[in-house]
Amino acid sequence: MAKNDELESLRRQVRDITAQIIRDVHRRMDLAKQIGEIKSMLGIDVKDEKVEHDIRLMVLSLADQIGMGRDFALQLLNILLAESEHVQAQKRPQKGQQKQTHLGIFMKAKQLEASGKKIIHMEVGEPDYSPPEAVGDSLAESFKQRQYHYTDTRGIPKLRDALAKKEGVSEDQVVVTPGGRFAVFSAITSLLKAGQELMVIEPAWPAYKECADFIGARTKVLRTTIENKWTPDLKQLEEMVNPSTKMIALNYPNNPTGKILDGKTMERIVSIAKDNDLYILSDEVYADYAFKKFASIHEYDYDKCILVSSFSKRYAMTGFRVGYAVASKDVIAKMSRVQAVGITSVAEPMQYAALAALGEDPSENIRTMKKRLDFVSGKLKEMSLQFVEPDGAMYVYPELPKGDDIMLVEKLLEKGVAIAPGSGFGDHYRQFVRISACQPEKTLEMGLDIMASVIKEFA
Amino acid sequence: MAKNDELESLRRQVRDITAQIIRDVHRRMDLAKQIGEIKSMLGIDVKDEKVEHDIRLMVLSLADQIGMGRDFALQLLNILLAESEHVQAQKRPQKGQQKQTHLGIFMKAKQLEASGKKIIHMEVGEPDYSPPEAVGDSLAESFKQRQYHYTDTRGIPKLRDALAKKEGVSEDQVVVTPGGRFAVFSAITSLLKAGQELMVIEPAWPAYKECADFIGARTKVLRTTIENKWTPDLKQLEEMVNPSTKMIALNYPNNPTGKILDGKTMERIVSIAKDNDLYILSDEVYADYAFKKFASIHEYDYDKCILVSSFSKRYAMTGFRVGYAVASKDVIAKMSRVQAVGITSVAEPMQYAALAALGEDPSENIRTMKKRLDFVSGKLKEMSLQFVEPDGAMYVYPELPKGDDIMLVEKLLEKGVAIAPGSGFGDHYRQFVRISACQPEKTLEMGLDIMASVIKEFA
Repeated sequence: MAKNDELESLRRQVRDITAQIIRDVHRRMDLAKQIGEIKSMLGIDVKDEKVEHDIRLMVLSLADQIGMGRDFALQLLNILLAESEHVQAQKRPQKGQQKQTHLGIFMKAKQLEASGKKIIHMEVGEPDYSPPEAVGDSLAESFKQRQYHYTDTRGIPKLRDALAKKEGVSEDQVVVTPGGRFAVFSAITSLLKAGQELMVIEPAWPAYKECADFIGARTKVLRTTIENKWTPDLKQLEEMVNPSTKMIALNYPNNPTGKILDGKTMERIVSIAKDNDLYILSDEVYADYAFKKFASIHEYDYDKCILVSSFSKRYAMTGFRVGYAVASKDVIAKMSRVQAVGITSVAEPMQYAALAALGEDPSENIRTMKKRLDFVSGKLKEMSLQFVEPDGAMYVYPELPKGDDIMLVEKLLEKGVAIAPGSGFGDHYRQFVRISACQPEKTLEMGLDIMASVIKEFA
Repeated sequence: MAKNDELESLRRQVRDITAQIIRDVHRRMDLAKQIGEIKSMLGIDVKDEKVEHDIRLMVLSLADQIGMGRDFALQLLNILLAESEHVQAQKRPQKGQQKQTHLGIFMKAKQLEASGKKIIHMEVGEPDYSPPEAVGDSLAESFKQRQYHYTDTRGIPKLRDALAKKEGVSEDQVVVTPGGRFAVFSAITSLLKAGQELMVIEPAWPAYKECADFIGARTKVLRTTIENKWTPDLKQLEEMVNPSTKMIALNYPNNPTGKILDGKTMERIVSIAKDNDLYILSDEVYADYAFKKFASIHEYDYDKCILVSSFSKRYAMTGFRVGYAVASKDVIAKMSRVQAVGITSVAEPMQYAALAALGEDPSENIRTMKKRLDFVSGKLKEMSLQFVEPDGAMYVYPELPKGDDIMLVEKLLEKGVAIAPGSGFGDHYRQFVRISACQPEKTLEMGLDIMASVIKEFA
């Protein structure tokens, strides 16, 4: 039959062209390897933003010309670029072990504690004060009320309604998540595809990059410096945007620096996002701990934004694992889909506990934290460490005069003090450490005194 | 400088070859489109396993020949294959809306309930009986004991130790997860890459495929039939394995059919997995509800297996969202990494609740379920529906004489009865529905009588 012959002939052509593509890709990798060797000799970075930018524009214009989908063309290109980078990086001397983050140190500290060692926890963002009493009552009550079933994936209606009211949106713009972290996870994994790009302003909580890595999306980093008081250079931000950029992650008050951006800077970031049709993921879990004016992303007129918040910091409810996201109905539907795939729904007793907390006043917690941050700042000044006084959040991020963060962190852990390495918040911050002010002043004082004596040994 | 000129020349070559690759890929898509049109005329399926198999072998041998990494070559090929399929499928008439699963019906039913309608829940696998009293005590106590903090990502040591003891493994072979679902999610997403393949024996809980889809892995389906009493054809299974296959998902006692495989069949599956170096993901959340001999995957001698279990079904603790996985130390480390990225840790009060439940005897629950399943089976026989009597689990999966599952499910939902559409467990099961026996007999009777009358209308 003629059609069957035709089918066979077409299939043969597909096989031939597939082999040709594989050969060409292999030749491309060879060229990349040669480029890598020359770069290594010349001492140039593996990643070259301008070369990447040019080739991306070339591919886009070629795709338009031959009538190929832009998304698919970029997906292909991104795979080729990633493999080139991989091939070139293999030629370099290894930069050391897997990154050490505050969570890694926390796990180590927990294991030391399990083996009987006393640890002062200044590594983790976990306030030591208690959740509101209403939360305890709710826990006891939830069993009697049989509140231990699957719920709507987006959360129990009462909690979603209450959050919608608080945020001034409709209930279908809210999803309750197992911690702010899962809100970040579902936003990034549902809105970005492999090869697309997320922009992160560092130093930053490592979760944004981790979530992007998880689905093979790429993270572009805009570095800020202590010299510029952790303010991002927006001209640089604008230049970094390219056709693969899909989202900017913001986190103010910032973890780890405590920075809050002023209104003008925020307006300019929003306008860059608008011009380039980017999502803004605004992680505002420290919004309550703001010691100067802080405006939520909701106060800027832009609908492609995702606000992430949580009960963890505000009410010292870290271990309940309840957070939430507020965004457009469409985005919430996409995030809820990830939640349905990953966890079905958030534990119902935990949702009722969050609902019980929601009416409570956290201002005593905020005052406590401010006092502790002042105390930590004072002690760090005594040690003559450089840092920017935090505008908010629960941390101070000082620069070390000597040695690197991992050396200090490990030395301190031996002495029963856990702090977070600065490089956990960005590769270029090996000279920094993050001190969490989540303990009583007496405890902080003990920990900081030990830190002072270790730093002196280094000097 | 000579080196710089060389660099420029190499970069030019990279640009040229990149353009060539893109052009060839586009030409390949054109060919695929033509093939699609002919297939459509001839009434052939878009997916052709044999053609795919041949081209995969060709690419592998080419990769070996030119010295290209097999993984990368397969990754590229899989992207091309997926795009071809996509292009060909677009030419077909749409097969209808997004798939309706039991979870989708549950969400609809919940919304109807929120608006005041009474619903008989026979769609969801959520037992109506209560968790052990010790669980309630633990909830009240956890607040007093300040058990509401971040825990080790893998779970609190006490719970991991208890589970390790129960399963006869060491504690680093256990991870506590937010429900069995997240154990499935972290196993699939950490052990498979985009383009690699998961084998699923259908009908099956849709989560396995959903998790594979989430990271761009492919699901190969082995269909079983009511005629063969839901026993998989192992010759077919063996033939489906190819170099991209990485994992087989097993779920016995099965959701939705209640099937338990005999020891011989299990042994042969394990041996196929061994021969091809495949992971076995064994979802055993219904292991307690086994009404004939059931042997856990742990009783077969194979270390590339992941056992998934949960507190949800055994103790009626669905809403606590606590499950766990048992595997090799390496696999547990990879799964824990996904858990650290997605959720940090499981809510601590929920972990203590699970610990409290662990010592309790579930045998009353098992007896209750068996009685209900017998009751449902009796009623379905009265309706003259065909089905295989379940060996275990909490469901019966009858075949409809007329009409399709979605028609029946929607009609029933209007009348206040929620059941699960058969096609939620596999595209080829539109003639089936799943009845969950998680309600008292009186309630089941009401629901099944309504179902009987609706089915009569169809006839």
